[in-house]
Amino acid sequence: MSDAHREMWERLNLDLTAHDGLLEVLGKFYGDIYMSQDNRLKGMEYMDFVLSEVHGLRIKELQEAKAQGRKVVGTFCVFVPEELTLAADAVQVGLCAGAEAGSDLAEELVPRNTCALIKSFIGFKLARLCPYLESSDLVVGETTCDGKKKAYEAFADHAPLYVMEVPQTKSVSARELWRDEVLRYMAQVEKLTGVTITAERLRTAIKTVNDRRRALQRLTALRSADPAPISGRDALLINQISFYDDPHRFTYKINELCDELELRVQAGQGVAPVGTPRLMLSGCPMAVPNWKLPYVIESSGAVIVGEESCIGTRNTRDLVDESGETVAEMVDALVDRYMKIDCACFTPNTDRQDNVASMAQTLKADGVINYSLMFCQPYAHEAMKLEHFLEGTVPTMSLETDYSMEDVEQLKTRIEAFVEMVS
Amino acid sequence: MSDAHREMWERLNLDLTAHDGLLEVLGKFYGDIYMSQDNRLKGMEYMDFVLSEVHGLRIKELQEAKAQGRKVVGTFCVFVPEELTLAADAVQVGLCAGAEAGSDLAEELVPRNTCALIKSFIGFKLARLCPYLESSDLVVGETTCDGKKKAYEAFADHAPLYVMEVPQTKSVSARELWRDEVLRYMAQVEKLTGVTITAERLRTAIKTVNDRRRALQRLTALRSADPAPISGRDALLINQISFYDDPHRFTYKINELCDELELRVQAGQGVAPVGTPRLMLSGCPMAVPNWKLPYVIESSGAVIVGEESCIGTRNTRDLVDESGETVAEMVDALVDRYMKIDCACFTPNTDRQDNVASMAQTLKADGVINYSLMFCQPYAHEAMKLEHFLEGTVPTMSLETDYSMEDVEQLKTRIEAFVEMVS
Repeated sequence: MSDAHREMWERLNLDLTAHDGLLEVLGKFYGDIYMSQDNRLKGMEYMDFVLSEVHGLRIKELQEAKAQGRKVVGTFCVFVPEELTLAADAVQVGLCAGAEAGSDLAEELVPRNTCALIKSFIGFKLARLCPYLESSDLVVGETTCDGKKKAYEAFADHAPLYVMEVPQTKSVSARELWRDEVLRYMAQVEKLTGVTITAERLRTAIKTVNDRRRALQRLTALRSADPAPISGRDALLINQISFYDDPHRFTYKINELCDELELRVQAGQGVAPVGTPRLMLSGCPMAVPNWKLPYVIESSGAVIVGEESCIGTRNTRDLVDESGETVAEMVDALVDRYMKIDCACFTPNTDRQDNVASMAQTLKADGVINYSLMFCQPYAHEAMKLEHFLEGTVPTMSLETDYSMEDVEQLKTRIEAFVEMVS
Repeated sequence: MSDAHREMWERLNLDLTAHDGLLEVLGKFYGDIYMSQDNRLKGMEYMDFVLSEVHGLRIKELQEAKAQGRKVVGTFCVFVPEELTLAADAVQVGLCAGAEAGSDLAEELVPRNTCALIKSFIGFKLARLCPYLESSDLVVGETTCDGKKKAYEAFADHAPLYVMEVPQTKSVSARELWRDEVLRYMAQVEKLTGVTITAERLRTAIKTVNDRRRALQRLTALRSADPAPISGRDALLINQISFYDDPHRFTYKINELCDELELRVQAGQGVAPVGTPRLMLSGCPMAVPNWKLPYVIESSGAVIVGEESCIGTRNTRDLVDESGETVAEMVDALVDRYMKIDCACFTPNTDRQDNVASMAQTLKADGVINYSLMFCQPYAHEAMKLEHFLEGTVPTMSLETDYSMEDVEQLKTRIEAFVEMVS
């Protein structure tokens, strides 16, 4: 890494020694999991580059934006309306939450029986390892699960935190509550940036975020081809990077990659032979560098064809209606779009069952793997329901794991058996 | 048990053999924990009787009410507004959730990492052991925690379930959502009973429930005396029975018991010598027959002087304002009262810290024991916060346990050390 990066990290008050260690492990892990793949798309070179500079060039861009007076908003959830953040001329980024860094420190703030993702974001802060968090002028939390909701209370002592209340049902009253929360966030981000969100600004922002969703939808659709034209690992990485990268550049690059994919599909080329068992992942989000399960699956003779998760189709499936003309109309369109999210925080959440089933069918999945983070109650409950719901339509298995590598062999044994079963 | 009871249980489709076993264990457990106490109040004879007939006479009363056309509403949470249930001429009862019955069956419906209370109510249903549930025409759930919120989805296949959305903050919008939910419940219970809730009916119901709260507040206040005039076990039992018993009869009996307590306090008499370490319990609810922890504490040289829990002061501290004249005014008073509940489902929930601190002071507690059910995330998080908050004011320890007896010796060791420390 360049000296300029090190100076930047020092200014951000990172723990340089620990951070060096983290980047080293990340680099090695990435090399093993990503660079070992055959038949990769040329378009993935951009992703390799972005990932190699995940704490470098992208952070430098954030610092440059800040130097120009722009603000950075950090998030942990797809409920934070990026359209409003962008309309207020701020940058929105997902925060570090996918590695075991600082988990021991985290347990001083949150209970031991907390999921790895939450322990991770607390740990990244306490161990001073996340340059995104240290660059954030505002961190927006939400009440999507008990774990995060209560962890944010402790986290608020360590970061400039703002919490949005996500309702728990999809009733008319719940929508009203969410609309109030969207408006409250709009006022908050306007206050942060000093920028008034006009119809023009909001229209542009909605288009920017929709364009990114459309590009990712295009990617999702292309994965229905057999042979699978892209690995699940690469597709996951793309979804992960969508939370960090500049949206315009990212969208351009994804469309470019999709052009390449289309040629591949036309040529009948893929990353695995025709007939390779096609699996779909469903459940909890996998934040960078949580690539364990995709790697194990794709090393077990299967290929992943879809990710039904927040870092996947849950974040890209629904567009914001673009016909609104006034700010109020556009806010209503935002509210409607975000209320469609089929997060396990809702009760009931039967839309998700239908979405998983239809995705499995469209992507011609031979099996669905329900992935839950240990101690994530909402997705653990839904995994049990999903297994019943999908019975007789597509083979399903449920796995519960965390960020440690201790269970890799155990996972491999179960996954190999499942792959054999669906073959 | 009388043959009439057995016929009733059979009509309720209980598993008679398993239920006999449950009652036998319950009786023995009660004998060991309750009948062994010295200097008990004469007023506790009523509680002994009620408990001995918990699945007998009280269920008979419910059946008689049903025979007269009244409806029974079962609940698991202090957020269900009993005032509306009573105003619609229905009976409201707490449902079985305090024993390990049927936990193995429960794990077929909910994840293993689910708290004992939730597994218990699912288990009681699947094992056909709860005559309250089998008597219920409507079961009202709520969205107070991820565990219950998602468990109700599975439970809905087994019981006539209706779910109220409890908000997660105390904002103006959150209060609006809760008001809508209270009105929706009012319509639901009116539909169930065919009774229109008039101002007159609601006024009477509010007074009934407030009177019970006032009696229990009187009991709480009398426990500030040293020596402690009543054991924690007995006080917990009283709070537990408040969820089952006829409210008028119960209130009358509690006031009678408080008269006796007052005489005791005047005479300087108690259940333990002056100077016995006084501890307060704080945290998760303890449903019948979850008496493990109070028993261990009071067998370790301490006396419990207060229960900061839903089966304790969280349910009795706040009254509904009685000055409303119209139904709308009274509904607003209900909404205000229920929004004061300092459940760990809210974020932030700093009122609870203040309430615990003030309670510890008023009751002259020498120590506070935070009690969390294993896998209860909201209260586990708050236990960590409470420990910090109370630092320097009153010694605090946090315990996590479930309904099994396996950890009794371990708990005893930790509690004895704590008692010694605060002595």
